[in-house]
Amino acid sequence: MSAERAERLARVALSRLGEPGDSKLRGLTAELGAVTLHDFLASERDVGGVLTDIAARLTGLDPAADLERADRQGIRYIVPGDDEWPTQLDDLDGCEAVQNRGGAPLGLWIKGPLRLNEICDSVAMVGSRSATTYGADVAGEMAARVAQSGTCVVSGAAFGIDQAAHRGALAAKGRTVAVLACGVDRAYPAAHTNLLNYLAEHGAVVSELAPGCSPTRSRFLARNRLIAGFARGTVVVEAAVRSGALNTANWTTKLNRTLMAVPGPVTSASSQGTHQLIRTGAATLVTQGSEVLELIKPSGQYLLEEARGVEGRRDTLRPREARVLDAVPVARPAQVDSIARTAGIGLVDVGRALTKLQAEGLVTRDARGWTLTASARA
Amino acid sequence: MSAERAERLARVALSRLGEPGDSKLRGLTAELGAVTLHDFLASERDVGGVLTDIAARLTGLDPAADLERADRQGIRYIVPGDDEWPTQLDDLDGCEAVQNRGGAPLGLWIKGPLRLNEICDSVAMVGSRSATTYGADVAGEMAARVAQSGTCVVSGAAFGIDQAAHRGALAAKGRTVAVLACGVDRAYPAAHTNLLNYLAEHGAVVSELAPGCSPTRSRFLARNRLIAGFARGTVVVEAAVRSGALNTANWTTKLNRTLMAVPGPVTSASSQGTHQLIRTGAATLVTQGSEVLELIKPSGQYLLEEARGVEGRRDTLRPREARVLDAVPVARPAQVDSIARTAGIGLVDVGRALTKLQAEGLVTRDARGWTLTASARA
Repeated sequence: MSAERAERLARVALSRLGEPGDSKLRGLTAELGAVTLHDFLASERDVGGVLTDIAARLTGLDPAADLERADRQGIRYIVPGDDEWPTQLDDLDGCEAVQNRGGAPLGLWIKGPLRLNEICDSVAMVGSRSATTYGADVAGEMAARVAQSGTCVVSGAAFGIDQAAHRGALAAKGRTVAVLACGVDRAYPAAHTNLLNYLAEHGAVVSELAPGCSPTRSRFLARNRLIAGFARGTVVVEAAVRSGALNTANWTTKLNRTLMAVPGPVTSASSQGTHQLIRTGAATLVTQGSEVLELIKPSGQYLLEEARGVEGRRDTLRPREARVLDAVPVARPAQVDSIARTAGIGLVDVGRALTKLQAEGLVTRDARGWTLTASARA
Repeated sequence: MSAERAERLARVALSRLGEPGDSKLRGLTAELGAVTLHDFLASERDVGGVLTDIAARLTGLDPAADLERADRQGIRYIVPGDDEWPTQLDDLDGCEAVQNRGGAPLGLWIKGPLRLNEICDSVAMVGSRSATTYGADVAGEMAARVAQSGTCVVSGAAFGIDQAAHRGALAAKGRTVAVLACGVDRAYPAAHTNLLNYLAEHGAVVSELAPGCSPTRSRFLARNRLIAGFARGTVVVEAAVRSGALNTANWTTKLNRTLMAVPGPVTSASSQGTHQLIRTGAATLVTQGSEVLELIKPSGQYLLEEARGVEGRRDTLRPREARVLDAVPVARPAQVDSIARTAGIGLVDVGRALTKLQAEGLVTRDARGWTLTASARA
């Protein structure tokens, strides 16, 4: 057996023995290498006190069979060093663990044509499962804009924002990746079977858990670090104060990646979490996809023009001309001396300004004096 | 005539001769004193080249009559040095002028029982005239909360956010001040006659323009600096990209006072200006009155608890206990060894955790094994 094959098998086995992101197992793998660690544990030799916890899982372990079965299901397994390995995940190894959970995954199971080494330029979009229609609409539009630019969208597969983000990216014929907290052969939630199948055909469905594994609460938390780890930046679209999306936000911050959040009505509980992120300075407020791109793209590539209103003819006037214009009555015509008194500007200057304003079509003159034109009144 | 009386008359006259915030007139007043400057101009002696502009306004100038008439209307005039002078306005003298407009006012005309020296602790609330019902509701509630705390609300008298802010403060039986761009005897807009009358009875209506003066565009811009100058901080509730409220925001920043903005739906043009202020870091996002108070009150006086969700029993569990709980099935009971395998935790620890979880009412046991309780499933 080649060393490469042995490494792959050992990683499959270790990922079945431990829970995703288990710091202890991760540390031992780094220290001993996956093959040695697996050999030790498989022969029930305790290392770092992990044997007790994993003992029950040693029975029936067969990584070769796992890989074969996955292959038949169109699922591939990649490990660090493979061409397809998304090296941006390795930054997770530099982050402090949270509740003994952290680090890059031992390997990744993937279903779908998208190659993970090609999505280093991606944006995570996360948020409440119980999104409002407002949140879902914004997520969909934002994801479409991001995807249109060729940037990959990364999310979970949950109801609400996750779903809207994928659908937005797919509608724009863009690339999108779902990272699961269970095996990539499982549809969770079941109602998203079609969505997940579609993603597996056109994008990618990814997990660090072996096929067949069920989602659990702690696996969702571990999964969130991968969503943050895949992306250049994370957008939280809607999040209540205890939303899981805030956990992904937290990993984004730990990774020193760009955290963004979408505001909403202050009366909406679904925006309370995003407002908190913005208010505390953890996240930058974003209102549309182009702002997201501006923040995550290399400097200068997506430079936004600040939103500006339509510039009126009034804006091109000098301050004193504007004051004269203000002093010209709407209805009853006024003489120059009256306008001068109202404006508080000398007669000569007022006369000059009126001529300019007349040329601009803002004021008009008849025998009785000066008035505003219809277009100046508008 | 006392020096004090002469100073007061000179300032009334000068304010009639120039436009509000006129930098040149303001500079000459500081240099020569109001009395000397007025004497020069009244005798048509040019100073600093201002005579041409004001010449037309010299005719019929009668500050003593102005004061007498105002007094009969229940309007008082205050100047720097008076007990009632709001000294926080003097900070405006330290700000760079914008389009030759800036500085503290020469004096203030006031109608209403509220004394301006007692509102140094105040919050300006400004925003679109064409506010949405969302914006008006938020402004009203925020103003009510701010006013309830004894803090005065300062605004204009326009439709939309201004109106909502005053009404909110009044509903909370709090203090509120309207700063006008015309004489305080004029109701502009006319539809706010009742509101302005009510404010003049219960709060204060203030202007640097003499009674009888009309509002003009440039007077609104000059007025905005006073709104910012009165307050410790300014909240922009809703603002389109070209809203006048952004001018007040700009003055707040120039004054190094606290600028706050309320977010809204990203789909609302009325929130585009506030989002821009937050996004660029000019303003801090606020969602409710207590957050405003926290920002403008001396440190520690209004410390907010961050919004947190309800803490569940699950939150008090240790990570490994939570993992065991996740491994307990919902329906079909499981034995300890199966739970241990699912959790990836040793048998002894799982047994201990299950006992703890049972005591917490989260799991239950029968002859066939362990399941979640109804309350844990909720």
